[in-house]
Amino acid sequence: MPQSSQPTAAMIVIGDEILSGRTQDANAHHLAGVMSEIGVRLVEIRVISDAHEGIVEAVNALRACVDYVFTSGGIGPTHDDITADAVAAAFGMPIGIREDARAILLAYYGDDQINDSRLRMARIPQGARLIDNPVSAAPGFVIGNVHVMAGVPVIFRAMLAGLRSSLSGGPLTLSHSFRLGVPEGTLAELLGALAAAHPACSIGIYPFYRQGPGCTIVLRSEDAEALAAARQALLAQLAAQGCEDFQEMSGAPS
Amino acid sequence: MPQSSQPTAAMIVIGDEILSGRTQDANAHHLAGVMSEIGVRLVEIRVISDAHEGIVEAVNALRACVDYVFTSGGIGPTHDDITADAVAAAFGMPIGIREDARAILLAYYGDDQINDSRLRMARIPQGARLIDNPVSAAPGFVIGNVHVMAGVPVIFRAMLAGLRSSLSGGPLTLSHSFRLGVPEGTLAELLGALAAAHPACSIGIYPFYRQGPGCTIVLRSEDAEALAAARQALLAQLAAQGCEDFQEMSGAPS
Repeated sequence: MPQSSQPTAAMIVIGDEILSGRTQDANAHHLAGVMSEIGVRLVEIRVISDAHEGIVEAVNALRACVDYVFTSGGIGPTHDDITADAVAAAFGMPIGIREDARAILLAYYGDDQINDSRLRMARIPQGARLIDNPVSAAPGFVIGNVHVMAGVPVIFRAMLAGLRSSLSGGPLTLSHSFRLGVPEGTLAELLGALAAAHPACSIGIYPFYRQGPGCTIVLRSEDAEALAAARQALLAQLAAQGCEDFQEMSGAPS
Repeated sequence: MPQSSQPTAAMIVIGDEILSGRTQDANAHHLAGVMSEIGVRLVEIRVISDAHEGIVEAVNALRACVDYVFTSGGIGPTHDDITADAVAAAFGMPIGIREDARAILLAYYGDDQINDSRLRMARIPQGARLIDNPVSAAPGFVIGNVHVMAGVPVIFRAMLAGLRSSLSGGPLTLSHSFRLGVPEGTLAELLGALAAAHPACSIGIYPFYRQGPGCTIVLRSEDAEALAAARQALLAQLAAQGCEDFQEMSGAPS
């Protein structure tokens, strides 16, 4: 992988329901797309269960090695929502009901529907700032470099959209993709040589099977000139192999 | 979470293309479902990039804490396929072309289509046993408790189907799910009390938004009697709340 000057991110998906196979997570894929769009390199996704110690451990392990950590899940009103407490514990900070968060919940639910369980969602670790929830009011929060968000996809996306302008990205990863109806094994040698000759690009090969084997070759770089040179070299190689039936896409998907 | 006597598993998804948002992983969700079906508890999923050190670290961290590790991705013929070498390094074992694996590839490709790149797929760490690939021949392998499989979903599934009978599961997790058009916050208190009164069950609440808030309550246990008791108690509580409009599902999805 070429050197990158992009900031890095990691995601922690908290959810027994993902690990049991009941639900397929969609938030990590959404986050991955947004990170690519803003020039942040997502380096790890961890899906862990709703267990205090495991959340503390994952938060502390990942916040030490990346610029941004994002969590999803476990910040609702029920007894199995333990993320806020675990994140507070990871930072060694006290947690309690915060007045601005309580006011947000009270305005949303009104006096007749607010209850102790819903007020649990106003429990915020000391020193955090709130993340706006335009869908169902109960806020997420940011403490240090850790962004704690809801697991319900529509809320996760809304929170991330609101956060987006506060995240600093680096140079964007530029890309060209080539989709070929040729198995990767016939091109592996030339692609290996191409990768060695173009160290400022990463060259990924992603096989697929549809009525037979094919592959997508993806050239990626933060350096537009290096990417253009690798693209030219690849086109020349494909032509030399008599391999002229392919689909090229530029930019997304990276 | 109640005590479990199920063996445990972890999955490592190796793929820059997942982290960049190009592809949405489907293998972890498939594995999660199969593990539930055979009574193995999946405790963690990690998605990491195609980088040697990171693969070694994740394999060594996870194989020490669970009964089964499964990896997907990075065992093809191209320069970015580095999983087999990294897994060999994690175990401190040498790796080289193995004759039985070479014979499998030769039978599939024939003399005219075999090449050095494809023969990379016959490189197997010493002491491993092969995993059959009925789709495209190139085998996976098992070393220690680590099962190394392809990333292409159709191949991953076929390899896992073949492995399945060699995996020992524990008692199955039984479940009842209740889908209600009621926000979780109105039921949080009674569900917390129910969870406290039924420690042999886990009681998960999964909110959703469709034309308004609703939630699915999932009772899970390895103990059929304890599950039946929790179900009766929940039904009584829902009736007492006048909440009689729900859908119940038993067994899967857990």
